[in-house]
Amino acid sequence: MRLALAQIDPTVGDLDGNVARIIAVLAQARQLGVDLVAFPELVISGYPPEDLLLKDHFLRDCRRGLDQVARHVQGLVAVVGVPLGGPDDTVANAAVVLAGGEIRAEYAKIRLPNYAVFDEQRYFDPGRKVLVFHLPEGRVAVNVCEDIWFPAGPCEEACLVGGAELVVNISMSPYHLGKGGERVEMLKQRALESGAFVGYVNGLGGQDELVFDGQSIVVSPAGAVLARGPQFEEALVVVDLDLKDALSAVGIGAAPGLWRIETVDIASETIEGRAEAPAETARGSGDDRGLLPVFTAADSPALLGQTAEVYEALCLGVRDYVRKNRFTDVVVGLSGGIDSALTACIAVDALGAERVHGVTMPSRYSSVGTRSDAEAVAENLGIGFSELPIETIFRAYLDTLAVEFAGREPDSAEENLQARVRGNLLMALSNKLGWLVLTTGNKSEMAVGYATLYGDMAGGFAVIKDVPKTMVYDLALYRNALDPASGPITDSTMTRAPSAELRADQCDQDSLPPYEVLDAIIEAYVVRDESLEEIVAAGSDRAVVERVLGMIDLNEYKRRQAAPGVRITPKAFGKDRRLPITNRYRG
Amino acid sequence: MRLALAQIDPTVGDLDGNVARIIAVLAQARQLGVDLVAFPELVISGYPPEDLLLKDHFLRDCRRGLDQVARHVQGLVAVVGVPLGGPDDTVANAAVVLAGGEIRAEYAKIRLPNYAVFDEQRYFDPGRKVLVFHLPEGRVAVNVCEDIWFPAGPCEEACLVGGAELVVNISMSPYHLGKGGERVEMLKQRALESGAFVGYVNGLGGQDELVFDGQSIVVSPAGAVLARGPQFEEALVVVDLDLKDALSAVGIGAAPGLWRIETVDIASETIEGRAEAPAETARGSGDDRGLLPVFTAADSPALLGQTAEVYEALCLGVRDYVRKNRFTDVVVGLSGGIDSALTACIAVDALGAERVHGVTMPSRYSSVGTRSDAEAVAENLGIGFSELPIETIFRAYLDTLAVEFAGREPDSAEENLQARVRGNLLMALSNKLGWLVLTTGNKSEMAVGYATLYGDMAGGFAVIKDVPKTMVYDLALYRNALDPASGPITDSTMTRAPSAELRADQCDQDSLPPYEVLDAIIEAYVVRDESLEEIVAAGSDRAVVERVLGMIDLNEYKRRQAAPGVRITPKAFGKDRRLPITNRYRG
Repeated sequence: MRLALAQIDPTVGDLDGNVARIIAVLAQARQLGVDLVAFPELVISGYPPEDLLLKDHFLRDCRRGLDQVARHVQGLVAVVGVPLGGPDDTVANAAVVLAGGEIRAEYAKIRLPNYAVFDEQRYFDPGRKVLVFHLPEGRVAVNVCEDIWFPAGPCEEACLVGGAELVVNISMSPYHLGKGGERVEMLKQRALESGAFVGYVNGLGGQDELVFDGQSIVVSPAGAVLARGPQFEEALVVVDLDLKDALSAVGIGAAPGLWRIETVDIASETIEGRAEAPAETARGSGDDRGLLPVFTAADSPALLGQTAEVYEALCLGVRDYVRKNRFTDVVVGLSGGIDSALTACIAVDALGAERVHGVTMPSRYSSVGTRSDAEAVAENLGIGFSELPIETIFRAYLDTLAVEFAGREPDSAEENLQARVRGNLLMALSNKLGWLVLTTGNKSEMAVGYATLYGDMAGGFAVIKDVPKTMVYDLALYRNALDPASGPITDSTMTRAPSAELRADQCDQDSLPPYEVLDAIIEAYVVRDESLEEIVAAGSDRAVVERVLGMIDLNEYKRRQAAPGVRITPKAFGKDRRLPITNRYRG
Repeated sequence: MRLALAQIDPTVGDLDGNVARIIAVLAQARQLGVDLVAFPELVISGYPPEDLLLKDHFLRDCRRGLDQVARHVQGLVAVVGVPLGGPDDTVANAAVVLAGGEIRAEYAKIRLPNYAVFDEQRYFDPGRKVLVFHLPEGRVAVNVCEDIWFPAGPCEEACLVGGAELVVNISMSPYHLGKGGERVEMLKQRALESGAFVGYVNGLGGQDELVFDGQSIVVSPAGAVLARGPQFEEALVVVDLDLKDALSAVGIGAAPGLWRIETVDIASETIEGRAEAPAETARGSGDDRGLLPVFTAADSPALLGQTAEVYEALCLGVRDYVRKNRFTDVVVGLSGGIDSALTACIAVDALGAERVHGVTMPSRYSSVGTRSDAEAVAENLGIGFSELPIETIFRAYLDTLAVEFAGREPDSAEENLQARVRGNLLMALSNKLGWLVLTTGNKSEMAVGYATLYGDMAGGFAVIKDVPKTMVYDLALYRNALDPASGPITDSTMTRAPSAELRADQCDQDSLPPYEVLDAIIEAYVVRDESLEEIVAAGSDRAVVERVLGMIDLNEYKRRQAAPGVRITPKAFGKDRRLPITNRYRG
């Protein structure tokens, strides 16, 4: 059997575009002699469609999209993910088997994740049957994402009871650092337990805060990786399998299963159907992107290193947010610091230098060093650059507020004002020129509230909001090392002590613990939900931990008004972490 | 049996405070000779605790709080809501029966809502048993919120199979306009079907975007309302019931039930226990608020009219957001328009005039009329008032941006700049003086994006963000009518055509349909999830509908960065409505 895994990048809500793209890939797969091609979970709607699923007309339009795809499935079999409305207002997260221009079987996802970034029990009804379809080349089970993640599930039942020799799992599995390794281990385990081949197709692309990284994979019944798609790129992974090598057989696990098994026979004459796909042209523009690059078992790409992986995730997140929301250009405020320098690098690598604009907005507190570093990174990257000093505007604010501020010492009010002048200037450029403002705050700052609402937090997409400060340095070094010369980020940017430069001689580390310490506390408290006592017991200073946790808790209100950004850790400040603003719990 | 329903206002995460408050109410109930007192759902943690529930130490602290409450339950029986960690990492949304200083029974909520604002399947494992406890006065079933909302559920089973004569349901049921009527109809139905008394305790208070409105209620087996607590106020509702009047009896519905029934006997000697509650003092400050006002069957308060109800909901939302987040004062930008005037009225009624500050920030486009109206409303309300003209700062921005803006016509960039200068001025006052900024945008504006990010959207709490513009007028008229004189909002504010005054002769209705039309479209599209075709078929102009839906869709990115505000409709722009920003679906 020639199996193809189509790791494509759909856009949420762009049904016409997604359908056109699928139809184009079907033609490509047919030309490659593919017998069975699988597309990602909910590929017709894009993933996650969230509350679009509450609209009846959206579900009807998805069904129409599926019917349109089905007509183009000629001469091969396809598995496609789609939300499917059923009787009694039920909705399935479905994998649909298409052959001979028709829908041949529907499978509803059994396990609906409702944790972390997932809300699938809000939208879907769980399936109650396992699906096995018989092709001329062998017996194939189909399931969806979460269904395959745990032992003794639909996968084993399809193979050990239903006799499937190949399990096709269609997924949209959100990326975080290290997720690829978790997936491979899990898939090997499942293949071994089931005695079957596993073909796992994972979609691609950025969708608001999520990035899907592809890396579709085929595993043998012995748990060996036979082929792997690239990470962060669209691809068609094509492998030839002899399903007779599978170890599963009907009746081995004769115990009655947890689910009913539905078996569907698809004869070769059905698959051939009409020789030609319908002449009808797809309406969308999803096929503009041309043929998919093809990867076979012989040319699976090398795995990326950890830092490279994060860097590429951030680039894909930016590229897709910009493209899918129909922006062309972005603007970045360059402070001379490492966060904004890194953000500019990512933007350039995602979009090209001609679409990135740098603006430096010096204040009375900006040093000569930061001003020249800001200009240097723009020059090194070859991006547009302009300077808008904020002093005149800042002074106008202070004059206007003179009566209100009289008799009070300068404090964070004046500091925030300067940050907000900068935010306004960037937004003015955005409004006038149509540029998307990229914000430059990192996860450490977002955690403790070292960011000004409507100031440096003003913008449409927060590129590194899930990147801890210590990892910012790793990424900057990584990016510089890609260049044969010295790299875009200057040494002085790399080595200068971090400062917001909003008052004289300000320095982050005056009021924060060293970033190594801070990031470890954030990781323990935010990502692992550890308590103050546990973090102290692990060796951190109690007073420091108390202060940091207090800052994290009290700044929830700021994060609630932050722009979305790319999730690269197991728990980001986004839909992963839903804490009340009004919350007196400390600990 | 003397039954008491304690509709109190807990604070999320303030375990010590909530426990202290419960203990104080227990003492009050004992003094009133109460046999059984019921507290709201999750009263120990506050509701909804959201991802606090993912912290093991939070669950342990809740359990400690429960144990502390239990020791104070002497001489009566109490039902208390608490999140309860169990074996295998399970978590129950529990109703716990306390008597004789001890935990006597635990019930886990069976039906976990996971729609609209609810995410309970993210946190809780469903219960699998129905609980009936036998008191000297009769047999009582306990369940939690959603459990009672549908026929043929735990309620009927407890009565028709388990023989319960009284059903105590503990709830935190979020308010929206008309919800009270829905609850009463539902509870009457449930009482009739079960042949039992129903005592329904609903908590109170504002929690971020949610408001809980109390209105606890006791219904007779014949479906008559015996007593009702006030709406939007804490209260202890006390009624005497003769449970022998119930119509239910063990074995009537002899069919095997869906759930196991657990029966617990609580003898009178257990209830009496030690004569005295423990001397141990509660640590929290939740009992500062003193005794609860007591309402009996004889003095149930009258129902509020619709507009009054919404007005009181908004006041409670503001009062609790300010109090629970430890603010004292608020500041409102007064434009001379009706939205900001109404917001100021609500703030004054919620907090008192001395804690509300009005600021007018006229631009070159502000008319004499709006400036004097802004001052008039401040004067009428007796709040502080200051004027900060924005022209100097606006001019400084234009000077700074002269090169970037050269050769381009004035457009929304200049308009937004002015709105952002105002936002910055309010935030400067907030930062310098510790005042919470209340934003003044209404739901109609939030829907179509007639609001400036970081401008008029800058602030901590968006009081009327779920109030459609047409209802803004109703509320303003209502508030004015409360005053014996002419009311705080001037006639000219009431009758002036709405305008942002960000350019010469600007008027909302130049680019929007009349607000009656707009609000009807928003209601259909946002609240009822109707399609473009359905809205057009119901009689709206196609071009208008297309334009409005497009505006609603495209402005999701703004709403994502908006401050929380009080939810008063069945679907607000908040956790109710989770649409992707990146979304090409139109229809």
